[in-house]
Amino acid sequence: MDKPLKYAVFGAGSWATAIVKMLSENLDEIGWYMRSVYTKEHLLREQHNPNYLSSVEFHLEQLKLSNDINEIAEYADVLIFVIPSAFIHSELEKLRIDISKKIIVSAVKGIMPETGLLVGEHFHDVYNIPYDNIAVIAGPCHAEEVALERLSYLTISCSDADKAKSIAENLSSDYIKTKISDDIIGVEYAVMLKNIYAIAAGIAHGLGYGDNFQSVLMSNAVREMKRFIKKRHKMKRNINNSAYLGDLLVTGYSVFSRNRMFGNMIGKGYTVKSAQMEMNMVAEGYYATKSAHLLHEKSAKKSQIPIINAVYQILYENKNPKKVFKRLTEKLD
Amino acid sequence: MDKPLKYAVFGAGSWATAIVKMLSENLDEIGWYMRSVYTKEHLLREQHNPNYLSSVEFHLEQLKLSNDINEIAEYADVLIFVIPSAFIHSELEKLRIDISKKIIVSAVKGIMPETGLLVGEHFHDVYNIPYDNIAVIAGPCHAEEVALERLSYLTISCSDADKAKSIAENLSSDYIKTKISDDIIGVEYAVMLKNIYAIAAGIAHGLGYGDNFQSVLMSNAVREMKRFIKKRHKMKRNINNSAYLGDLLVTGYSVFSRNRMFGNMIGKGYTVKSAQMEMNMVAEGYYATKSAHLLHEKSAKKSQIPIINAVYQILYENKNPKKVFKRLTEKLD
Repeated sequence: MDKPLKYAVFGAGSWATAIVKMLSENLDEIGWYMRSVYTKEHLLREQHNPNYLSSVEFHLEQLKLSNDINEIAEYADVLIFVIPSAFIHSELEKLRIDISKKIIVSAVKGIMPETGLLVGEHFHDVYNIPYDNIAVIAGPCHAEEVALERLSYLTISCSDADKAKSIAENLSSDYIKTKISDDIIGVEYAVMLKNIYAIAAGIAHGLGYGDNFQSVLMSNAVREMKRFIKKRHKMKRNINNSAYLGDLLVTGYSVFSRNRMFGNMIGKGYTVKSAQMEMNMVAEGYYATKSAHLLHEKSAKKSQIPIINAVYQILYENKNPKKVFKRLTEKLD
Repeated sequence: MDKPLKYAVFGAGSWATAIVKMLSENLDEIGWYMRSVYTKEHLLREQHNPNYLSSVEFHLEQLKLSNDINEIAEYADVLIFVIPSAFIHSELEKLRIDISKKIIVSAVKGIMPETGLLVGEHFHDVYNIPYDNIAVIAGPCHAEEVALERLSYLTISCSDADKAKSIAENLSSDYIKTKISDDIIGVEYAVMLKNIYAIAAGIAHGLGYGDNFQSVLMSNAVREMKRFIKKRHKMKRNINNSAYLGDLLVTGYSVFSRNRMFGNMIGKGYTVKSAQMEMNMVAEGYYATKSAHLLHEKSAKKSQIPIINAVYQILYENKNPKKVFKRLTEKLD
């Protein structure tokens, strides 16, 4: 029998921590790279991540912790990247070893802001990873509910179904159900786009729009998402599957969503800068909005994307949210 | 020029009251039938409905109020029925006049429990109303937000597009946007089914499932809704339009939803009877569940409807909600 593949997680945010927890239900050892020396030392001392999902207690004998990305990349066969898209480029620059034979899994919720490439495309182009060795993990799944072991569903996408299945099995447990998909490109775009729509939902809420309007916004968002993805990668997909619509809904409706919170502050009159300072972070959807806008601009095949355009005008062109949304309401139905 | 058509609303619940408010933005006079003498007298004295949306103040000179259904049916050309499906049969038995030349609009959120007919089918069969003279008003729209004049969207369905447009215009205002559709049957089924899914969402919440699961449930619900409606009436429709998905979302996610509240109590361990007594009403979805189940049983063309089946087992077969939902989670994806 083949030796079982070794898994490692890169990143120490809430979603990275949740994925380590899921894997720890199945694997004897998990590599875990994190940038922060403090986080690593806290984990070794207290058995939990100091900053995220701190109620989750890990068994140290299952974890191979390191602040050296090369050590963990060397160690593992399956590399799961869970780093915010804004930092992934600088993190990957530290890599000195050849990862071309590894299986790369993206749990990054965005695309490379520097290039507009999907994370999978980036690994393919820069590290010569064949597409059959690239997978994507998608929700709908708030990390906070994984910590509480509340039933959640994941979709693992990979053009190689056997690899998708194997990764899915290692993430499955009593509280995690998984399905597989071959639509790696569509799922990656959906993961990115949902954060823009969550910002839109937050802006609407901040401006005082109610539940009736939110449902119209989400109903339009899923149709816009379908059009957008179809222009990038045409294939038969049911946009109402959990990885697309489900993920959109959990992000758009949940108070846990940081993108929604960011939008809410913008709607209430914060500037982009002050909202980001107040939150002490940059919401993924902020970068996603620019990337989606650029992809759309560059594209010969354009679809109608009024919601993305509205969010772009507010975040990047300093347009008045109230006026932009007033115009947007005329375009929705 | 033709004389403008006279409108009347039948019913005095929250949705009926909201529709009268919408019409009062456009029409000089609106007929309004209500069963309760007390409600009528209160309206005449205080200018608001004592039981629903009491913040909405009406101008009495715009209203022609009556407790006599025949007087109002005689008066109007466009009859908008907004009576709970459980009571519509007994209310209509009071009709003594010929309504076969009237335009009938259903804003009933269910189907006739006695016969399993859609409200439109009932009027066609029993009162000889041609289908071109039957329309349906669908949301997504909580009456409470109409009272607050929060922007909401309605879909008016009628096989005669001119009639749909004319009704839509009379409902439109600064805070109400309308669109028209020719899918009267699909929209009527959607209006009914969403209440079953809202009960399911409530049960899940009551049992302790979280946001991640809710989004999977809703993503499965809209796919189930599409399959169910397609078996009843096959035509080209985008199930993600506001009248289907939007209405499902506002009902499934809003704390205003009485069907969701009813489900929540069931999930928390109330019996059906005690939940109904506590709420002092029977949620529309309770009847809809039975109707949908019967339609499915009688149908030669069956689709997979695991969510409706689960709710049916809990409400009508006294099955344990926790066990039923545990089995349901295996069928969702």
